[in-house]
Amino acid sequence: MSQFLKVKTADEVLSILDGIDPLPQETVTLELACGRRLASDIVAAESVPHFSRATMDGYAVRARDTFGASESLPALLERTGEVVMGEATSLTVGPGKAVEVPTGGMIPDGADAVVMVEYSSKLDNTMIEITRPAAPGENVLKAGDDIAPGEVLFRKGAMLRPQDIGVLAALGIAEVEVFRVARVALISTGDEIVPVEIHPLPVGKVRDINSFSLAALIESAGARVGMKRKVSDRLEDLVSACREAMMNHDVIVLSGGSSVGVRDYTAQVLAGLPKSELLVHGVAIRPGKPTILGRAGGALFWGLPGQPVSALITCREFVLPSLRKLHGVIETELVHSRSIGAILSHQLPSVHGRTDYVPVHLSRSGQGRTEASPIFGKSGAISILARADGYVVIPEHVEGLDQGAGVSVFLF
Amino acid sequence: MSQFLKVKTADEVLSILDGIDPLPQETVTLELACGRRLASDIVAAESVPHFSRATMDGYAVRARDTFGASESLPALLERTGEVVMGEATSLTVGPGKAVEVPTGGMIPDGADAVVMVEYSSKLDNTMIEITRPAAPGENVLKAGDDIAPGEVLFRKGAMLRPQDIGVLAALGIAEVEVFRVARVALISTGDEIVPVEIHPLPVGKVRDINSFSLAALIESAGARVGMKRKVSDRLEDLVSACREAMMNHDVIVLSGGSSVGVRDYTAQVLAGLPKSELLVHGVAIRPGKPTILGRAGGALFWGLPGQPVSALITCREFVLPSLRKLHGVIETELVHSRSIGAILSHQLPSVHGRTDYVPVHLSRSGQGRTEASPIFGKSGAISILARADGYVVIPEHVEGLDQGAGVSVFLF
Repeated sequence: MSQFLKVKTADEVLSILDGIDPLPQETVTLELACGRRLASDIVAAESVPHFSRATMDGYAVRARDTFGASESLPALLERTGEVVMGEATSLTVGPGKAVEVPTGGMIPDGADAVVMVEYSSKLDNTMIEITRPAAPGENVLKAGDDIAPGEVLFRKGAMLRPQDIGVLAALGIAEVEVFRVARVALISTGDEIVPVEIHPLPVGKVRDINSFSLAALIESAGARVGMKRKVSDRLEDLVSACREAMMNHDVIVLSGGSSVGVRDYTAQVLAGLPKSELLVHGVAIRPGKPTILGRAGGALFWGLPGQPVSALITCREFVLPSLRKLHGVIETELVHSRSIGAILSHQLPSVHGRTDYVPVHLSRSGQGRTEASPIFGKSGAISILARADGYVVIPEHVEGLDQGAGVSVFLF
Repeated sequence: MSQFLKVKTADEVLSILDGIDPLPQETVTLELACGRRLASDIVAAESVPHFSRATMDGYAVRARDTFGASESLPALLERTGEVVMGEATSLTVGPGKAVEVPTGGMIPDGADAVVMVEYSSKLDNTMIEITRPAAPGENVLKAGDDIAPGEVLFRKGAMLRPQDIGVLAALGIAEVEVFRVARVALISTGDEIVPVEIHPLPVGKVRDINSFSLAALIESAGARVGMKRKVSDRLEDLVSACREAMMNHDVIVLSGGSSVGVRDYTAQVLAGLPKSELLVHGVAIRPGKPTILGRAGGALFWGLPGQPVSALITCREFVLPSLRKLHGVIETELVHSRSIGAILSHQLPSVHGRTDYVPVHLSRSGQGRTEASPIFGKSGAISILARADGYVVIPEHVEGLDQGAGVSVFLF
């Protein structure tokens, strides 16, 4: 009973994760920066554009020279030259003059607008007609209009997306300071577990599922799995493998064992490690109650249940948020990025005080709505994993969800 | 005018992409299979579980021996032994007998149910009391209950997720046949473009943004960027670079040039390549109208506008779906996986017959709703990229969206 009192809610665990500091920073080239999080703000050191540019093909003019121009009464201007793309121009635009300019070309001194080529026609080699007035600034992007020096473009902790990489390239930033990604050691235990390659499977044994599914999930979150090992259920062997992992990993994920007693067993492994501290000893969730969290020296230590569905859900719900904190997320981004709305096909009972994660299959209902059907499988069935498109969360303060309720499905 | 008639709608372009065949298949180990698409169905060759297993810690019994058992009138059974985790057992359960079994342990012959340890108590070294009846099959996962031999687990074209990797591991499948990922050549052109490292930026020049943003986007879609080159605007140089790219790339993406004439220029490059065919010559979208699609020998050829916002949106809307087809997607998965619902903060006008992509910023409104605010920037502004959280699509048959309308925001 004293153990049961120690169990934390899912929200309490996430609050503890909020306190995790990011890993040290490192410098990476722009080619490798996508998906990484900034270790400092990015401030523009120069103007974008660097010079006033045309945003359309046409004629650079003094806007006032075109005022009142129309099809019936065009403005007549003298074409005095042409701006060459990619080159500085020494041309200037005086009263009654116009200079041809391509999209992206430099606006000559004296001009304050560009008349689109569609609203012009050549009368002869020098004179052109303008059939629409241009407002000052029209079709011109002035130096610094887009990005001004001193502007904060990205905040520390922001994850760089492909378009952000483009903005950094525009500013000539070829390297950035980002937080290092986590090195994760995956240790699976259980005397019944044998390597995947074993054929035929001896009676009483099962193959090592979690090493593969957890590694794929952890790597999809941007971390690196540096050690992947199957260890016997003996306490000394587990402690020894974890000690080795601590030397050059930031996170140790230990999965395995059966459900009763596994919390205490994993807690014993943790207690056997130097400078260890137990932070969470069981979580009020289903599945995944035996999940434990601790620290061992500088490493984060996760104990996940061995059952594959439970291991995958607790990894997604708790281990991935801890990796995001290590990777430098600053805001409380502890939310799923991939969820879709659906209608629940069946009633789902739950228990007050426990968060339930229910695997669901998605389909189109007759009315064109997306329907989420709970996958009721026997505990321990791994085919649930193959059939599930995602899962529905029943929060701890909710006692169940009704058939037809609108739910968010977190996509696997 | 004849050119304008050739312009296709966004949907017409996506229909053309539907006809793209996947790349050849290759064999990868399970560790490298996550995110890849299967080149053939996966059929289970064995049963999961391989033997009948307990799903709870307790006693394997004959269910009928527990019928009628209660707290006040417990069933008395003789404990004849214990199943060792991970080992085959030769024990059998006869009438009035029980064998202790851990979660995941093998069910001995003769037993058809497991009584949870919570509903038992030991009277002495051999006798136990059972205080609740067990139904036949209770807490037992029979051989093949989870996955039966011959069952089709995954279809050709399915993308393997972390949990699917786990299912394959359970079946002892250490290698899978998947479609090869695309090798992409990125060529950017424009005489105004200089390498990112150039400091200070010469007047009239801009740095090469698209090489970086498009490469990051294409790699995030699982393809490999094998060649990244900046080429001058000269037709011969562009044709020569594309010929070289064709030798060992599946897709050529040419971005650059100004908007007027770029379609024709890129089409001329395509026409200069061996065995080339023009499939799309302009798309009725904003931004991105000058987008072109063709084939050159075995390679797919994309011409994207040079303007960075247009290049990124057309890459996301058209190039990525073409990569998904090359990677083996079978269903019409030509949809965005990451979108969220929001309320539009401003009216958005559009034009019938054209699909508009409008960058938006997301924020929380006072009512706790997510609000999408269009980013109105001058054409050509790249800071739009940094400020946008995603974009709203105004389909071709819609003439605009009202303020307050519910919209799907496709996350960048």
